[in-house]
Amino acid sequence: MNEKEQRLRRPWQELDRDIAQQDREAVARCLRELGSDQCTHAIARLSEERQAELFGMLEPGQGAVLLQALPETQSARILHSVSDATAARLLEQLPSDQQADLLNQMPRRQADRILAVMRPDQAAEVRQLLRYARDSAGGLMIRQYLAYPADAEAQQVLADLRMHADRFRKYDVQYIYVLDGDGKLVGVVRQRDLLLADAKQPIVTLAVPNPVGVHVHTPLEELERLFDLYPYYGLPVLDEAGRLVGVVRRQDVEKAGEERTGRSLLKLAGIVGGDELRSMPWRVRAAKRGSWLTINLFLDLMAALVIAAYEDTLSAWVALAIFLPVLSDMSANAGVQAIAVSLRELTLGLLRPADVWHVVRKELTTSLFNALLLGGCIGLVAWWWKGMPLLGVVVGAAMALNLVIAACVGGVLPLLMRWLGQDPAMASGPILTTITDCCGFFLALQLARLALPYVG
Amino acid sequence: MNEKEQRLRRPWQELDRDIAQQDREAVARCLRELGSDQCTHAIARLSEERQAELFGMLEPGQGAVLLQALPETQSARILHSVSDATAARLLEQLPSDQQADLLNQMPRRQADRILAVMRPDQAAEVRQLLRYARDSAGGLMIRQYLAYPADAEAQQVLADLRMHADRFRKYDVQYIYVLDGDGKLVGVVRQRDLLLADAKQPIVTLAVPNPVGVHVHTPLEELERLFDLYPYYGLPVLDEAGRLVGVVRRQDVEKAGEERTGRSLLKLAGIVGGDELRSMPWRVRAAKRGSWLTINLFLDLMAALVIAAYEDTLSAWVALAIFLPVLSDMSANAGVQAIAVSLRELTLGLLRPADVWHVVRKELTTSLFNALLLGGCIGLVAWWWKGMPLLGVVVGAAMALNLVIAACVGGVLPLLMRWLGQDPAMASGPILTTITDCCGFFLALQLARLALPYVG
Repeated sequence: MNEKEQRLRRPWQELDRDIAQQDREAVARCLRELGSDQCTHAIARLSEERQAELFGMLEPGQGAVLLQALPETQSARILHSVSDATAARLLEQLPSDQQADLLNQMPRRQADRILAVMRPDQAAEVRQLLRYARDSAGGLMIRQYLAYPADAEAQQVLADLRMHADRFRKYDVQYIYVLDGDGKLVGVVRQRDLLLADAKQPIVTLAVPNPVGVHVHTPLEELERLFDLYPYYGLPVLDEAGRLVGVVRRQDVEKAGEERTGRSLLKLAGIVGGDELRSMPWRVRAAKRGSWLTINLFLDLMAALVIAAYEDTLSAWVALAIFLPVLSDMSANAGVQAIAVSLRELTLGLLRPADVWHVVRKELTTSLFNALLLGGCIGLVAWWWKGMPLLGVVVGAAMALNLVIAACVGGVLPLLMRWLGQDPAMASGPILTTITDCCGFFLALQLARLALPYVG
Repeated sequence: MNEKEQRLRRPWQELDRDIAQQDREAVARCLRELGSDQCTHAIARLSEERQAELFGMLEPGQGAVLLQALPETQSARILHSVSDATAARLLEQLPSDQQADLLNQMPRRQADRILAVMRPDQAAEVRQLLRYARDSAGGLMIRQYLAYPADAEAQQVLADLRMHADRFRKYDVQYIYVLDGDGKLVGVVRQRDLLLADAKQPIVTLAVPNPVGVHVHTPLEELERLFDLYPYYGLPVLDEAGRLVGVVRRQDVEKAGEERTGRSLLKLAGIVGGDELRSMPWRVRAAKRGSWLTINLFLDLMAALVIAAYEDTLSAWVALAIFLPVLSDMSANAGVQAIAVSLRELTLGLLRPADVWHVVRKELTTSLFNALLLGGCIGLVAWWWKGMPLLGVVVGAAMALNLVIAACVGGVLPLLMRWLGQDPAMASGPILTTITDCCGFFLALQLARLALPYVG
């Protein structure tokens, strides 16, 4: 196998070796030869130390482009691993909202050290943004926007734009904001309207008056709904006094929405913090998963206490032990279905914490049908398998009842978590399985104890 | 309680009543008074028949704005429920990519009927789009864009834009495309560069040459990576011959990405198709969940067969039955963690189906630590609880081994599913639990059978 073939087959090994050998040119060539998505994949396969070495070797501009192509969690960990100076140079190449996002994910002290070596003007901008919650308009906005006083004429604005063409080209803004004397927003002009304007027209006459604006503390959910409703590329962000302080862009809101949905998926599956990547050190990964599994173990043992309380029943009727894990697994599945639908509906704004009774009613109708069907199924299986009709009745009835309980509890848990201010994705699962296991085992074993005297 | 209070507390009941009474004015007032997010919430609480009645009553323009604020699944179901003529009128108000998305989710015949009553020019556009897969550049693109020949002068373009200002205002496009005589794309002009141009300049000199373009069949994952890499608002979409056929916008790509992540979450949790909403009829919801639960039941019973094969061991050592559900639940949890991380990494492009060995290695190191810890824990609990050291060894060893198996199997399953062309989110869960249950029960019961002769 010649070198060319080897490179084609395993680009990350090539990259890994070039980095280890501190061969800047080979690294640059290797990254150029890989497509953008291959780059992401190759970098994900490197250890975190290698990733840090890589970004220490690259030009800040090139490094920043790569960082933007990586998942945010990975970018944050890379900045965490490189030197403060390197991190500052990389960050300086990014838009201010991304700077704030990444610094937000670092320990406070390190973020302060990096800010101290960043360009003072940029550092001051980011410090402003860091005051706002990550998933709010203030945390998502960029500070680069174009604003002119209301009485400026179209040709004056165009002349100014031409004079500062460089800055204008760099600014990723589709609108020109019109401000009154106090810096308050009075209108928004689209680039296209400026294109079509007469030279002497004051820009305020081109502007859409009373534009849709958001407050710095407007949460992500509300921003998503606004962008769903309006076709705008960005919305002006206003402070308490109604002064324009930034622009929140559609792309940043949609990206933040997807990040959150992705984190929900991982949290629901029991990844603490919702952001594991396999390039993280194994200790970090083991801790994220282990802490969760340990809690589950103790919750599972609580449910096992229910079985232990019926050991005499179980000794007398060992066949029941075959069906207890089935009962536990089916109930968990039915409950998790309901949890996932509630999580999704909460995210989409279709459901609110107060809608408990609505969810219970909806879950009851859906689950009753499945409960009767599946309870009947397993009842018949148990009867036929062990030749004991009473075993079938006990197992089937416990299954049917518990499936209904699981669906209702699962549907309501995320609402309750949200209402308590907890993360609905993280805690719902283990609480659900503890409840459904305890209920299920109790139902099956108590019914069995009642039925035992009649077993031939 | 007066009427005002009642409205403040339950807007959907108000809306429901107004629709039932066919009171158009009251409905319009009610929607106006609710904010945008309250509208989404109120509509989600209506039955599907009421939703259909509502959209039958609204002006198409107003209805279309509402439709865009709703989740796509819900919008599609609403169009499915209203008359074909109403659906056509509503669809005509939407951009062509959304028309195609919604028609894609309907039965083929109904889509054809609706297309037949739509405006012929729009219907032709949508038929074009429907030829492409939903999550490809062709399926996501819009057909409304601005293009001019290479030798047009800046002032000619501006004059044309002014003449067609209405159309230009409606077009949601940030770039002007420059075509050669064959309709092939030779460059892209940004609005801002046109603003800054001299009157006589041919637009080709303003254009970025060799612009980034995508092929109609470029998949969503690739589009996401391109938009991560480049700051553009849209990318030109080219057909096989390199001719410009549409524009795919950042916002549509990011929205499609979030829809897919959301569907993954629901699929992983066992919602068939990944798109249940509680406003759907209970039969549809019961079928989605029930089909999944039925498959799980039979898989669970397969695992139960393993227990059944060891009934004699279990009779001799009933305490084991307490720990079997714990073993089953813990293994499932550990496996689902690994599944979720693999799903996420697959989506982000950090992982490919060929990376099986990489995943196994990473899962081994992480899980070994947790396995020893948790296996040790439950072993000690079993020993102390029942006063039998051998029970502790059996339960602890089975738990530790099975946690490692679960993490490796869970990590690899989504890769295998993707490689087989299956949806990795849907099938991975039940296959995992079947494997981990069979392995776990076998390990625990076989170890117990070996240990039984030594139990005092």
